[in-house]
Amino acid sequence: MSAISYELLQQDETSNARLGRVTTPHGSFDTPAFMPVGTQGTIKGLLPQSVADTGAQIVLGNTYHLLLRPGSELIAKMGGLQDWTGWRGPMLTDSGGFQVFSLGNLNKIDDDGVKFKSHLDGAEFHLTPERSMLVQEQLGADIIMAFDDCPPAAVEKLNPRNVADSPVRSDSARTQTAEPAVMTPAEYAKRVEIANERTLRWLDRCVKAHRASGRWDEQGLFGIVQGGTDLDQRTFCAEQVTQHDLPGFAIGGVAVGEGSDEIRSVVEHTAPLLPSDKPRYLMGVGYERDIVAAVRAGVDMFDCVLPTRNGRNASAFTSTGLIRLKNAKFAEDPRPIEEGCDCVTCTGFSRSYIRHLFQANEMLGGILVSLHNLRHFQRLLLDIRGAIRDNAWSSLAERWPVAFPAGA
Amino acid sequence: MSAISYELLQQDETSNARLGRVTTPHGSFDTPAFMPVGTQGTIKGLLPQSVADTGAQIVLGNTYHLLLRPGSELIAKMGGLQDWTGWRGPMLTDSGGFQVFSLGNLNKIDDDGVKFKSHLDGAEFHLTPERSMLVQEQLGADIIMAFDDCPPAAVEKLNPRNVADSPVRSDSARTQTAEPAVMTPAEYAKRVEIANERTLRWLDRCVKAHRASGRWDEQGLFGIVQGGTDLDQRTFCAEQVTQHDLPGFAIGGVAVGEGSDEIRSVVEHTAPLLPSDKPRYLMGVGYERDIVAAVRAGVDMFDCVLPTRNGRNASAFTSTGLIRLKNAKFAEDPRPIEEGCDCVTCTGFSRSYIRHLFQANEMLGGILVSLHNLRHFQRLLLDIRGAIRDNAWSSLAERWPVAFPAGA
Ligand SMILES: [Zn+2]
Ligand SMILES: [Zn+2]
Repeated sequence: MSAISYELLQQDETSNARLGRVTTPHGSFDTPAFMPVGTQGTIKGLLPQSVADTGAQIVLGNTYHLLLRPGSELIAKMGGLQDWTGWRGPMLTDSGGFQVFSLGNLNKIDDDGVKFKSHLDGAEFHLTPERSMLVQEQLGADIIMAFDDCPPAAVEKLNPRNVADSPVRSDSARTQTAEPAVMTPAEYAKRVEIANERTLRWLDRCVKAHRASGRWDEQGLFGIVQGGTDLDQRTFCAEQVTQHDLPGFAIGGVAVGEGSDEIRSVVEHTAPLLPSDKPRYLMGVGYERDIVAAVRAGVDMFDCVLPTRNGRNASAFTSTGLIRLKNAKFAEDPRPIEEGCDCVTCTGFSRSYIRHLFQANEMLGGILVSLHNLRHFQRLLLDIRGAIRDNAWSSLAERWPVAFPAGA
Repeated sequence: MSAISYELLQQDETSNARLGRVTTPHGSFDTPAFMPVGTQGTIKGLLPQSVADTGAQIVLGNTYHLLLRPGSELIAKMGGLQDWTGWRGPMLTDSGGFQVFSLGNLNKIDDDGVKFKSHLDGAEFHLTPERSMLVQEQLGADIIMAFDDCPPAAVEKLNPRNVADSPVRSDSARTQTAEPAVMTPAEYAKRVEIANERTLRWLDRCVKAHRASGRWDEQGLFGIVQGGTDLDQRTFCAEQVTQHDLPGFAIGGVAVGEGSDEIRSVVEHTAPLLPSDKPRYLMGVGYERDIVAAVRAGVDMFDCVLPTRNGRNASAFTSTGLIRLKNAKFAEDPRPIEEGCDCVTCTGFSRSYIRHLFQANEMLGGILVSLHNLRHFQRLLLDIRGAIRDNAWSSLAERWPVAFPAGA
């Protein structure tokens, strides 16, 4: 029996959107779901209880960062990531692969795996499918991800979305890797094809290793569909990945530098190729409009660092777009970040006070905006689930203009 | 009628310690009480609710910092410091004087007041007794402090206790002032005498200004006894200050660089000189043993930045002394900071996890240790109140060895 089960509660009448519930060894979460990201074993500046109070039912941990520091053996010894960090609900860890590609100093990628140096201290690591499984087994999250080869977008743009929630810049790190910053269409097609085939071979090894670990019933392994923006490659990869009887499937390799339209095209093509009786996870997405479009394509799970990273930079999400709280115009603004928001920040603190905190370099500023931003995404998902339940998409669009840009 | 009233609930049988309650326009607090310090309109990194959850019933705000940024007019316009910062309970502000002396670039001290430059941007300010009253009236705390002249200790040592909870170093700032770093005994006596007389003249002006403000019934003004380590000067100053019918009195000018024995000698001499039907406040103290000694001398109120400042530096208070959580020996220590502590940190997180947070420069580390440290002092005060109630000093000494050092 798998560690993870999915219950489809309701299918939307006007789209592929669906209401569901995922059950894990650490409890259940409602889908579509948004997962806050805890890069180094903490969602920056926030107590686990505060994160839960925003409505988050599942959080994501980054394998790459924890592997480097303090090491997964230590965390295993301390009872696993959930016990150690005080997050008692469901948790998902990524495979570490994506961040090796974006943050590590890559020495060598081959069919065996990836050799890289830590961005912290230059220590050498070797990550393979088997080692990623072992590390994620030591971390002990309910959902673990297959180790995949994730190529950059054809034209790489600096994209803040899918990198871990840490100050390391992806652009500078990327230039030290074997990946060229800009590829010709032919180079890109070739790279995607290689990545896809490697991803499939690595998935076989992940499945085998995880089955052999004896933890199949405790941790659910999700397969990942790659294929870049090439829809034929997406089809091929989805067909192959779903040959494995896994408790969930993810769409990877989006939000690596392409635009909203490309994300949408890939997601609308790929989500329906995944089994409808399993949760579908769109990795590293994203902005409100991308989430709504993906939900309507049939996606159930999302993660993104933007709420906390933007929060620390004084950028607050609202239903009509970002506002920058360092702006002088907020100095005497007695209003909350967003009228009607029920978060701890908006019910107790003014824009004026929050601006002061940033002016005075007080960490409470970033904490308050992070809490609001996390609640913003949870409220959006709550309303999305309501829209599916009640077929109320037009009122969703009225309440969340930012998620329904003109012409989209 | 005064804004502040004091109810003496019980007198200890073996010392001058007493159990009481102070009532303010924003509610009551039990005494002896410990006040956390919120230097820039926030107790660093903590939501007001989290501070209240540590057991704090009253907090302190620093006038000097708020005067510089964002300015007291702005805070008045936003409804006062309590509304603006979200702390709904009792609050006390200092006069700004002490920090002008320790942090500002002093240009001139004379009988009119103090001219200084902001340590932030060099902007010039002029603080007088009348202006300190006005600024504290704009901040709107329940208890406001008289503007006094607070000389340094005879031999200045670097003392972290009474400076605001900010990264500005008091030692470097002090060298830019008119005060010599080391005084001869004769120089010191002269300086204390001048300060004492000035403090008394300034108190007359504070009382007059605050009475004229029309806020006498909303904000209680406390007088401050100076006099350095000269007990005759303390006697003289206490006699003069208590001529004013004020709702409370403070012992100032301790914890400015002298040792525990000197603090104790001054406090044991001075506290009994203050009216027993008013709360007595020992400013800027301090360590556990100093608090216990002062309580037994008859002191009711304390404030100190150590819990939060040490917390951010990974130093945790325990009943047997400080532990430094960055130490490698805690890497795999599954225990809480202190067994038996009921704080949010000790009931949910291990030393191992907290050490990792500091290693990874995660702000949650400082937050967790600050929360524990604040609870540590609240638990100490709770036990002190229990010891007075039940005449249980010997069991207090058993539970808090750090507060009863051998030979003290
Ligand atoms: Zn909010
Ligand atoms: Zn504790």
